[in-house]
Amino acid sequence: MTASISETLPASLDGIRRRRPLVHNIANIVVANVVANALLALGASPAMVESAEEAPELARAADALVINLGTISSAVAAAARLASAAALAAGRPWVLDPVAVGVLGYRTRLAAELLADKPAVIRGNASEIAALGGEAGGGKGVDSTLDTEAAATAARRLADRTKSIVVVSGAIDRITDGKRMVAIANGHPVMARVTGSGCMSSALVGAFLAVSPDPFSAAAQAMLTMAVAGEMAARRSQGPGGWSTAFFDTLYNVEAAEILKLASVS
Amino acid sequence: MTASISETLPASLDGIRRRRPLVHNIANIVVANVVANALLALGASPAMVESAEEAPELARAADALVINLGTISSAVAAAARLASAAALAAGRPWVLDPVAVGVLGYRTRLAAELLADKPAVIRGNASEIAALGGEAGGGKGVDSTLDTEAAATAARRLADRTKSIVVVSGAIDRITDGKRMVAIANGHPVMARVTGSGCMSSALVGAFLAVSPDPFSAAAQAMLTMAVAGEMAARRSQGPGGWSTAFFDTLYNVEAAEILKLASVS
Amino acid sequence: MTASISETLPASLDGIRRRRPLVHNIANIVVANVVANALLALGASPAMVESAEEAPELARAADALVINLGTISSAVAAAARLASAAALAAGRPWVLDPVAVGVLGYRTRLAAELLADKPAVIRGNASEIAALGGEAGGGKGVDSTLDTEAAATAARRLADRTKSIVVVSGAIDRITDGKRMVAIANGHPVMARVTGSGCMSSALVGAFLAVSPDPFSAAAQAMLTMAVAGEMAARRSQGPGGWSTAFFDTLYNVEAAEILKLASVS
Repeated sequence: MTASISETLPASLDGIRRRRPLVHNIANIVVANVVANALLALGASPAMVESAEEAPELARAADALVINLGTISSAVAAAARLASAAALAAGRPWVLDPVAVGVLGYRTRLAAELLADKPAVIRGNASEIAALGGEAGGGKGVDSTLDTEAAATAARRLADRTKSIVVVSGAIDRITDGKRMVAIANGHPVMARVTGSGCMSSALVGAFLAVSPDPFSAAAQAMLTMAVAGEMAARRSQGPGGWSTAFFDTLYNVEAAEILKLASVS
Repeated sequence: MTASISETLPASLDGIRRRRPLVHNIANIVVANVVANALLALGASPAMVESAEEAPELARAADALVINLGTISSAVAAAARLASAAALAAGRPWVLDPVAVGVLGYRTRLAAELLADKPAVIRGNASEIAALGGEAGGGKGVDSTLDTEAAATAARRLADRTKSIVVVSGAIDRITDGKRMVAIANGHPVMARVTGSGCMSSALVGAFLAVSPDPFSAAAQAMLTMAVAGEMAARRSQGPGGWSTAFFDTLYNVEAAEILKLASVS
Repeated sequence: MTASISETLPASLDGIRRRRPLVHNIANIVVANVVANALLALGASPAMVESAEEAPELARAADALVINLGTISSAVAAAARLASAAALAAGRPWVLDPVAVGVLGYRTRLAAELLADKPAVIRGNASEIAALGGEAGGGKGVDSTLDTEAAATAARRLADRTKSIVVVSGAIDRITDGKRMVAIANGHPVMARVTGSGCMSSALVGAFLAVSPDPFSAAAQAMLTMAVAGEMAARRSQGPGGWSTAFFDTLYNVEAAEILKLASVS
């Protein structure tokens, strides 16, 4: 699999920077700014539209859609349902980020419902993935209380059931299609002390999906890019404030060869 | 009182970093990102949920609740009413931040109504505190036009009437329970040139309330941490952009002893 | 025209810093934080209020209003209609930022409708200005696909028809009243890789309108300040993360003489 990422990442990163795919985000509004900046720094073209009046029109026009449940309300849920249906109908790949699913009843039911529109990729922390798979996973607020090891089984089961690629984020990120499993051991603990690290990961998955034919590979490339850029930024900073600045600069300047050199993938 | 903060601050700061209390914010959406980052940098676990569908459920589960009126609408007001009632019923401490109360009629009436749910702490600038107490205080948009000295009396009266701890922010921060009064002379003028300084203060009060039995002491500890960290960040920066970066790094790295060493409390 | 900006910019910048005009923003919520910070760094007093309950009251009280369609919904549209009508009735200058008009039907119709309330200034990219003028301009998501040269004609026509000052942003910014045309060749490509550069420009136009009697001159002064400060920040940074930090510091510290020294205006 390391070989596979080595082969595909340079072309995907170059593709994003040349073609500037339009990534439509129904965003967690708390982190919409940093998600847009991460996509722009990488080279993609973000649009954050979450009204029922406009979301389905944009979902059809965009190269990929990312639905994040972080700040869901009944109004945004209506837009999300229309957008995921529009993406499915138009054959556009989309990503589901089930923030805090398992903690709050409303969004847990909504996430289960959205699965019917066949997300290409689902990315969450261990508690969220376990909860989405119908398993008791714990979780406190938006932070996971479940070990990612323990979530690997839940991820495989969810991928099996939904036919989506499932990504479990944590100290080690895992990507699975139910059979294959990639583990990425990059990243840095400071990333858990900046809001939006997870949401930015999901958005990067959307950007890679837009230029990559294989969702399993796209998810792995995106998670590796996020984790290595985050690690590079952590080396150049002394806390979460400096990390943010360095992270956007890294995404903007980084070459595929640098990412692959630091990659810890198995 | 300086002695008292010296005794309590180390344990509270350590408590936040070890227990990572869940702080539920019905946030000013303009600054929700930096408020979440301030809580994460300090060591707490933020969750920003402001829909009527989910806010009361989270308010019951969280260790503290912070209601900020900065970007209130009828939809968010409905969530705020449910959340403050849920916090009161569940015995959870909560903070009211009455942004721009006294300037805009809708939120002025809402703030008066929310007082019935007995916030543990109310934090605002001088104009906001005076207006909430039913006194003419001036105020232009979200900025105070009233001297904090002049607001001390208004703060005492509001604390007397509501039995809440009242914090008046300004060049000098004042914390009162109607009888006792602590004044903190730390901070830096650049903090008034970054959006969210006040809102971050209120959120830090929430984090300290979650680990501290005494709301008067919790409010003083939080305001001192904010003011000293802000002052330390100002010394390492040349404007509001650099200040933000340095501020999050400072909150992340600062020790209680450093805060107490720089404290100017009376 | 260079002479004219040289004469007016020092007094306007000083006026903003001394009088701290209240600029009411019905903001693109994705970038509301950076827009507020840009206004604060410059010296103005921002307020972001976009509920129908409060927006008209604030629009009457503020020194200028900026309506940004970036994250419009039916609820925010209702507030925008009330606010633009209130500004017109109260004789307050206001700015229209037609983000992604021409791409999405709902906001394209809304923007056309808001023109009836006579914005003092309209600022958009080339595709947006062309679309608002009823011409096919292309555009992908929020990014322009039309050359700014090609948009100059569309800008002139729109200014002629609406009697508003029209600003077309791009590698070269153009400001026109339908007859006169100022071109500003400052700025830096990295500004297109940070979300909110355009929205911050519109907000700065609002701040300059609040202290300047002539909207044509105010728009030119604001766009020059944005472009030169952005260019100065780019020289001191290595990517979009560092640029943001340096940009707010530059707006906070810059003197009119520095801006005029670097100005490339024709």
